[in-house]
Amino acid sequence: MPGSGKSLFSNLLKDKGAKVIVMSDVVKKRFSEDGKPGERLMDYAKRLRTIYGNGVVARLSVESMGSPSPLVVFDGVRSLDEVEEFRNLLQGNEIFLVSVHSPPSIRYERIMNRMRPDDSKDISLVKLRDKEELDFGLGGVIAMSDYIITNSSSIAEFKRECEDFIKRVLKFG
Amino acid sequence: MPGSGKSLFSNLLKDKGAKVIVMSDVVKKRFSEDGKPGERLMDYAKRLRTIYGNGVVARLSVESMGSPSPLVVFDGVRSLDEVEEFRNLLQGNEIFLVSVHSPPSIRYERIMNRMRPDDSKDISLVKLRDKEELDFGLGGVIAMSDYIITNSSSIAEFKRECEDFIKRVLKFG
Repeated sequence: MPGSGKSLFSNLLKDKGAKVIVMSDVVKKRFSEDGKPGERLMDYAKRLRTIYGNGVVARLSVESMGSPSPLVVFDGVRSLDEVEEFRNLLQGNEIFLVSVHSPPSIRYERIMNRMRPDDSKDISLVKLRDKEELDFGLGGVIAMSDYIITNSSSIAEFKRECEDFIKRVLKFG
Repeated sequence: MPGSGKSLFSNLLKDKGAKVIVMSDVVKKRFSEDGKPGERLMDYAKRLRTIYGNGVVARLSVESMGSPSPLVVFDGVRSLDEVEEFRNLLQGNEIFLVSVHSPPSIRYERIMNRMRPDDSKDISLVKLRDKEELDFGLGGVIAMSDYIITNSSSIAEFKRECEDFIKRVLKFG
Protein backbone atom coordinates (compact mmCIF):
# COMPACT_ATOMS: atom_id res chain seq x y z
CA MET A 1 0.00 0.00 0.00
CA PRO A 2 1.20 3.58 -0.59
CA GLY A 3 3.55 4.76 2.15
CA SER A 4 4.19 1.27 3.54
CA GLY A 5 7.93 1.49 2.90
CA LYS A 6 8.28 -1.15 0.21
CA SER A 7 10.66 1.02 -1.88
CA LEU A 8 13.05 1.09 1.04
CA PHE A 9 13.04 -2.71 1.02
CA SER A 10 13.63 -2.97 -2.74
CA ASN A 11 16.33 -0.28 -2.59
CA LEU A 12 18.16 -2.33 0.03
CA LEU A 13 18.04 -5.31 -2.33
CA LYS A 14 19.24 -3.14 -5.21
CA ASP A 15 22.22 -2.01 -3.13
CA LYS A 16 23.07 -5.69 -2.62
CA GLY A 17 23.06 -6.31 -6.38
CA ALA A 18 19.51 -7.44 -7.09
CA LYS A 19 17.85 -6.28 -10.29
CA VAL A 20 14.80 -4.19 -9.33
CA ILE A 21 11.91 -3.64 -11.74
CA VAL A 22 9.58 -0.97 -10.33
CA MET A 23 6.26 -1.94 -11.88
CA SER A 24 4.80 1.57 -11.65
CA ASP A 25 7.82 2.82 -13.64
CA VAL A 26 6.98 0.28 -16.35
CA VAL A 27 3.43 1.71 -16.43
CA LYS A 28 4.69 5.34 -16.31
CA LYS A 29 7.02 4.69 -19.27
CA ARG A 30 4.14 3.40 -21.36
CA PHE A 31 1.87 6.19 -20.08
CA SER A 32 4.33 8.83 -21.34
CA GLU A 33 4.09 7.34 -24.82
CA ASP A 34 0.50 6.15 -24.85
CA GLY A 35 -1.53 8.19 -22.28
CA LYS A 36 -4.41 10.40 -23.45
CA PRO A 37 -4.25 14.17 -22.87
CA GLY A 38 -5.40 14.93 -19.30
CA GLU A 39 -5.58 11.24 -18.34
CA ARG A 40 -4.56 10.37 -14.75
CA LEU A 41 -1.85 7.71 -14.42
CA MET A 42 -4.20 5.59 -12.27
CA ASP A 43 -6.91 5.77 -14.95
CA TYR A 44 -4.38 4.84 -17.64
CA ALA A 45 -3.32 1.85 -15.53
CA LYS A 46 -6.97 0.76 -15.35
CA ARG A 47 -7.44 1.26 -19.11
CA LEU A 48 -4.32 -0.78 -19.84
CA ARG A 49 -5.76 -3.69 -17.84
CA THR A 50 -9.16 -3.40 -19.51
CA ILE A 51 -7.55 -3.66 -22.94
CA TYR A 52 -4.75 -6.18 -22.35
CA GLY A 53 -6.00 -8.10 -19.30
CA ASN A 54 -5.24 -7.89 -15.57
CA GLY A 55 -1.83 -9.53 -15.95
CA VAL A 56 -0.51 -7.02 -18.49
CA VAL A 57 1.82 -5.09 -16.17
CA ALA A 58 3.38 -8.35 -15.00
CA ARG A 59 4.03 -9.32 -18.64
CA LEU A 60 5.52 -5.91 -19.46
CA SER A 61 7.68 -6.12 -16.32
CA VAL A 62 9.04 -9.57 -17.16
CA GLU A 63 9.75 -8.36 -20.70
CA SER A 64 11.73 -5.38 -19.35
CA MET A 65 13.90 -7.70 -17.22
CA GLY A 66 16.72 -8.03 -19.76
CA SER A 67 19.74 -10.19 -18.97
CA PRO A 68 19.43 -12.90 -16.27
CA SER A 69 20.20 -12.03 -12.67
CA PRO A 70 20.47 -14.18 -9.53
CA LEU A 71 17.71 -12.11 -7.86
CA VAL A 72 15.06 -10.02 -9.59
CA VAL A 73 12.65 -7.90 -7.54
CA PHE A 74 9.29 -6.92 -9.03
CA ASP A 75 8.31 -3.96 -6.87
CA GLY A 76 4.61 -3.10 -6.83
CA VAL A 77 2.48 -6.20 -7.57
CA ARG A 78 -1.16 -5.07 -7.52
CA SER A 79 -3.35 -8.13 -8.01
CA LEU A 80 -3.47 -11.91 -7.80
CA ASP A 81 -3.86 -11.95 -11.58
CA GLU A 82 -0.38 -10.44 -11.79
CA VAL A 83 0.92 -13.00 -9.28
CA GLU A 84 -0.48 -15.80 -11.46
CA GLU A 85 1.07 -14.23 -14.57
CA PHE A 86 4.49 -14.04 -12.85
CA ARG A 87 4.23 -17.67 -11.69
CA ASN A 88 3.40 -18.76 -15.25
CA LEU A 89 6.10 -16.69 -16.94
CA LEU A 90 8.81 -17.44 -14.38
CA GLN A 91 8.27 -21.17 -14.01
CA GLY A 92 11.33 -22.99 -12.75
CA ASN A 93 12.41 -20.05 -10.60
CA GLU A 94 11.96 -19.76 -6.85
CA ILE A 95 9.33 -17.08 -6.22
CA PHE A 96 8.75 -15.22 -2.94
CA LEU A 97 5.64 -13.07 -2.59
CA VAL A 98 6.56 -10.47 0.03
CA SER A 99 4.39 -7.65 1.40
CA VAL A 100 5.42 -4.70 3.53
CA HIS A 101 2.70 -3.64 5.95
CA SER A 102 2.22 -0.45 7.90
CA PRO A 103 -0.93 0.65 9.72
CA PRO A 104 -3.00 3.17 7.69
CA SER A 105 -2.50 5.94 10.29
CA ILE A 106 1.30 5.71 9.89
CA ARG A 107 1.13 5.43 6.10
CA TYR A 108 -1.06 8.53 5.84
CA GLU A 109 1.33 10.51 8.02
CA ARG A 110 4.29 9.44 5.86
CA ILE A 111 2.54 10.29 2.60
CA MET A 112 1.47 13.73 3.87
CA ASN A 113 5.08 14.40 4.89
CA ARG A 114 6.98 13.08 1.88
CA MET A 115 7.43 15.08 -1.29
CA ARG A 116 6.86 12.64 -4.13
CA PRO A 117 5.25 14.16 -7.23
CA ASP A 118 2.42 11.61 -7.26
CA ASP A 119 1.56 12.03 -3.56
CA SER A 120 -1.35 14.14 -2.44
CA LYS A 121 -1.43 16.39 0.63
CA ASP A 122 -5.22 16.02 0.72
CA ILE A 123 -6.18 13.16 3.08
CA SER A 124 -9.37 12.39 1.15
CA LEU A 125 -7.28 11.89 -2.03
CA VAL A 126 -4.80 9.72 -0.10
CA LYS A 127 -7.72 7.57 1.07
CA LEU A 128 -9.13 7.46 -2.46
CA ARG A 129 -5.77 6.16 -3.70
CA ASP A 130 -5.93 3.41 -1.04
CA LYS A 131 -9.38 2.48 -2.30
CA GLU A 132 -8.18 2.37 -5.90
CA GLU A 133 -5.23 0.15 -4.94
CA LEU A 134 -7.61 -2.20 -3.11
CA ASP A 135 -9.96 -2.22 -6.13
CA PHE A 136 -7.05 -3.49 -8.26
CA GLY A 137 -6.88 -6.40 -5.80
CA LEU A 138 -3.88 -5.40 -3.70
CA GLY A 139 -5.57 -6.69 -0.52
CA GLY A 140 -5.70 -10.16 -2.02
CA VAL A 141 -1.98 -10.03 -2.78
CA ILE A 142 -1.20 -9.08 0.83
CA ALA A 143 -3.53 -11.80 2.16
CA MET A 144 -1.85 -14.45 -0.03
CA SER A 145 1.73 -13.31 0.66
CA ASP A 146 4.39 -15.81 1.61
CA TYR A 147 5.89 -13.21 3.94
CA ILE A 148 4.74 -9.94 5.47
CA ILE A 149 7.36 -7.57 6.86
CA THR A 150 5.97 -4.98 9.26
CA ASN A 151 7.13 -1.37 9.13
CA SER A 152 5.43 0.41 12.00
CA SER A 153 8.26 1.81 14.09
CA SER A 154 11.54 3.45 13.03
CA ILE A 155 13.39 3.29 9.70
CA ALA A 156 16.34 1.71 11.51
CA GLU A 157 14.14 -1.06 12.93
CA PHE A 158 12.54 -1.70 9.53
CA LYS A 159 15.96 -1.85 7.85
CA ARG A 160 17.07 -4.36 10.46
CA GLU A 161 13.97 -6.51 9.75
CA CYS A 162 14.63 -6.31 6.00
CA GLU A 163 18.31 -7.21 6.40
CA ASP A 164 17.36 -10.17 8.55
CA PHE A 165 14.77 -11.29 5.98
CA ILE A 166 17.21 -10.93 3.05
CA LYS A 167 19.80 -13.02 4.86
CA ARG A 168 17.54 -15.63 6.46
CA VAL A 169 14.87 -16.17 3.80
CA LEU A 170 16.29 -14.94 0.49
CA LYS A 171 19.84 -16.00 1.44
CA PHE A 172 21.12 -13.14 -0.69
CA GLY A 173 24.02 -10.66 -0.56
CA MET B 1 -7.84 -16.26 6.15
CA PRO B 2 -8.85 -19.86 6.94
CA GLY B 3 -6.15 -21.73 8.84
CA SER B 4 -4.23 -18.60 9.81
CA GLY B 5 -4.61 -19.27 13.53
CA LYS B 6 -6.87 -16.38 14.47
CA SER B 7 -9.04 -18.57 16.72
CA LEU B 8 -6.00 -19.38 18.79
CA PHE B 9 -5.49 -15.65 19.30
CA SER B 10 -9.10 -14.98 20.26
CA ASN B 11 -9.14 -18.03 22.56
CA LEU B 12 -6.12 -16.63 24.38
CA LEU B 13 -8.04 -13.39 24.88
CA LYS B 14 -11.10 -15.32 26.05
CA ASP B 15 -8.99 -17.12 28.65
CA LYS B 16 -7.90 -13.72 29.93
CA GLY B 17 -11.51 -12.60 30.39
CA ALA B 18 -12.33 -10.90 27.08
CA LYS B 19 -15.77 -11.37 25.57
CA VAL B 20 -15.36 -13.10 22.21
CA ILE B 21 -18.02 -12.89 19.50
CA VAL B 22 -17.20 -15.36 16.73
CA MET B 23 -18.83 -13.70 13.73
CA SER B 24 -19.21 -16.97 11.80
CA ASP B 25 -21.14 -18.38 14.80
CA VAL B 26 -23.50 -15.41 14.55
CA VAL B 27 -24.06 -16.29 10.88
CA LYS B 28 -24.37 -20.03 11.64
CA LYS B 29 -27.02 -19.37 14.30
CA ARG B 30 -29.11 -17.40 11.81
CA PHE B 31 -28.41 -19.97 9.09
CA SER B 32 -29.84 -22.76 11.28
CA GLU B 33 -33.11 -20.80 11.57
CA ASP B 34 -33.23 -19.13 8.19
CA GLY B 35 -31.14 -21.17 5.68
CA LYS B 36 -32.82 -22.77 2.66
CA PRO B 37 -32.76 -26.57 2.26
CA GLY B 38 -29.43 -27.60 0.67
CA GLU B 39 -27.98 -24.08 0.90
CA ARG B 40 -24.26 -23.84 1.69
CA LEU B 41 -23.34 -21.67 4.68
CA MET B 42 -21.09 -19.53 2.44
CA ASP B 43 -23.96 -18.95 -0.01
CA TYR B 44 -26.29 -18.07 2.87
CA ALA B 45 -23.69 -15.56 4.12
CA LYS B 46 -23.64 -13.98 0.65
CA ARG B 47 -27.45 -13.91 0.47
CA LEU B 48 -27.66 -12.26 3.90
CA ARG B 49 -25.36 -9.46 2.66
CA THR B 50 -27.31 -9.04 -0.57
CA ILE B 51 -30.57 -8.57 1.37
CA TYR B 52 -29.39 -6.58 4.41
CA GLY B 53 -26.19 -4.91 3.16
CA ASN B 54 -22.50 -5.71 3.53
CA GLY B 55 -22.37 -4.56 7.15
CA VAL B 56 -25.13 -6.88 8.34
CA VAL B 57 -22.94 -9.42 10.17
CA ALA B 58 -21.20 -6.60 12.04
CA ARG B 59 -24.61 -5.26 13.14
CA LEU B 60 -25.79 -8.72 14.24
CA SER B 61 -22.49 -9.24 16.10
CA VAL B 62 -22.75 -5.94 17.98
CA GLU B 63 -26.35 -6.77 18.85
CA SER B 64 -25.30 -10.14 20.28
CA MET B 65 -22.70 -8.48 22.51
CA GLY B 66 -24.97 -8.24 25.60
CA SER B 67 -23.64 -6.66 28.78
CA PRO B 68 -20.62 -4.32 28.58
CA SER B 69 -17.14 -5.77 28.91
CA PRO B 70 -13.71 -4.11 29.15
CA LEU B 71 -12.55 -5.96 26.01
CA VAL B 72 -14.75 -7.39 23.27
CA VAL B 73 -13.23 -9.38 20.41
CA PHE B 74 -15.08 -9.66 17.10
CA ASP B 75 -13.46 -12.70 15.54
CA GLY B 76 -13.80 -12.99 11.76
CA VAL B 77 -14.25 -9.55 10.16
CA ARG B 78 -14.63 -10.13 6.41
CA SER B 79 -14.83 -6.74 4.71
CA LEU B 80 -14.09 -3.05 5.06
CA ASP B 81 -17.86 -2.45 5.05
CA GLU B 82 -18.02 -4.43 8.30
CA VAL B 83 -15.08 -2.43 9.69
CA GLU B 84 -16.93 0.80 8.88
CA GLU B 85 -20.10 -0.54 10.50
CA PHE B 86 -18.18 -1.46 13.67
CA ARG B 87 -16.53 1.98 13.79
CA ASN B 88 -19.95 3.63 13.47
CA LEU B 89 -21.72 1.44 16.01
CA LEU B 90 -18.89 1.44 18.55
CA GLN B 91 -18.02 5.13 18.48
CA GLY B 92 -16.28 6.29 21.63
CA ASN B 93 -14.52 2.95 22.08
CA GLU B 94 -10.90 2.25 21.26
CA ILE B 95 -10.84 -0.08 18.24
CA PHE B 96 -7.93 -2.25 17.10
CA LEU B 97 -8.11 -3.94 13.72
CA VAL B 98 -5.83 -6.96 14.02
CA SER B 99 -5.05 -9.60 11.39
CA VAL B 100 -3.30 -12.91 11.81
CA HIS B 101 -1.25 -13.87 8.76
CA SER B 102 0.18 -17.21 7.68
CA PRO B 103 1.57 -18.07 4.25
CA PRO B 104 -0.95 -19.96 2.07
CA SER B 105 1.25 -23.09 1.95
CA ILE B 106 1.18 -23.37 5.76
CA ARG B 107 -2.55 -22.57 5.99
CA TYR B 108 -3.40 -25.26 3.44
CA GLU B 109 -1.37 -27.82 5.33
CA ARG B 110 -3.11 -26.93 8.61
CA ILE B 111 -6.59 -27.07 7.07
CA MET B 112 -5.90 -30.45 5.45
CA ASN B 113 -4.72 -31.78 8.81
CA ARG B 114 -7.36 -30.36 11.16
CA MET B 115 -10.74 -31.95 11.64
CA ARG B 116 -13.25 -29.11 11.65
CA PRO B 117 -16.64 -29.97 10.15
CA ASP B 118 -16.51 -27.05 7.69
CA ASP B 119 -12.98 -27.83 6.45
CA SER B 120 -12.39 -29.63 3.18
CA LYS B 121 -9.71 -32.23 2.50
CA ASP B 122 -9.85 -31.31 -1.17
CA ILE B 123 -7.18 -28.69 -1.95
CA SER B 124 -9.21 -27.20 -4.82
CA LEU B 125 -12.12 -26.59 -2.40
CA VAL B 126 -9.73 -25.10 0.15
CA LYS B 127 -8.46 -22.71 -2.55
CA LEU B 128 -12.05 -21.94 -3.59
CA ARG B 129 -12.82 -20.98 0.02
CA ASP B 130 -9.82 -18.61 -0.04
CA LYS B 131 -11.19 -17.04 -3.19
CA GLU B 132 -14.64 -16.64 -1.64
CA GLU B 133 -13.15 -15.00 1.46
CA LEU B 134 -11.19 -12.60 -0.74
CA ASP B 135 -14.33 -11.85 -2.77
CA PHE B 136 -16.03 -10.74 0.47
CA GLY B 137 -13.17 -8.22 0.79
CA LEU B 138 -11.01 -9.93 3.41
CA GLY B 139 -7.83 -8.84 1.60
CA GLY B 140 -8.81 -5.22 2.08
CA VAL B 141 -9.30 -5.78 5.81
CA ILE B 142 -5.82 -7.30 6.11
CA ALA B 143 -4.28 -4.47 4.05
CA MET B 144 -5.93 -1.84 6.27
CA SER B 145 -5.15 -3.56 9.59
CA ASP B 146 -3.67 -1.62 12.46
CA TYR B 147 -1.64 -4.70 13.36
CA ILE B 148 -0.67 -7.95 11.65
CA ILE B 149 0.55 -10.84 13.78
CA THR B 150 2.45 -13.48 11.84
CA ASN B 151 1.88 -17.16 12.51
CA SER B 152 4.33 -19.05 10.35
CA SER B 153 6.41 -21.11 12.74
CA SER B 154 5.37 -23.07 15.87
CA ILE B 155 2.25 -22.73 18.02
CA ALA B 156 4.49 -21.86 20.98
CA GLU B 157 6.12 -19.02 19.05
CA PHE B 158 2.73 -17.72 17.87
CA LYS B 159 1.35 -17.83 21.42
CA ARG B 160 4.38 -15.88 22.60
CA GLU B 161 3.76 -13.23 19.91
CA CYS B 162 0.06 -13.01 20.88
CA GLU B 163 0.86 -12.73 24.59
CA ASP B 164 3.34 -9.96 23.84
CA PHE B 165 0.77 -8.15 21.69
CA ILE B 166 -1.98 -8.46 24.32
CA LYS B 167 0.28 -7.02 27.00
CA ARG B 168 2.08 -4.34 24.97
CA VAL B 169 -0.68 -3.08 22.65
CA LEU B 170 -4.01 -4.07 24.19
CA LYS B 171 -2.66 -3.66 27.75
CA PHE B 172 -5.09 -6.38 28.84
CA GLY B 173 -5.08 -9.25 31.34
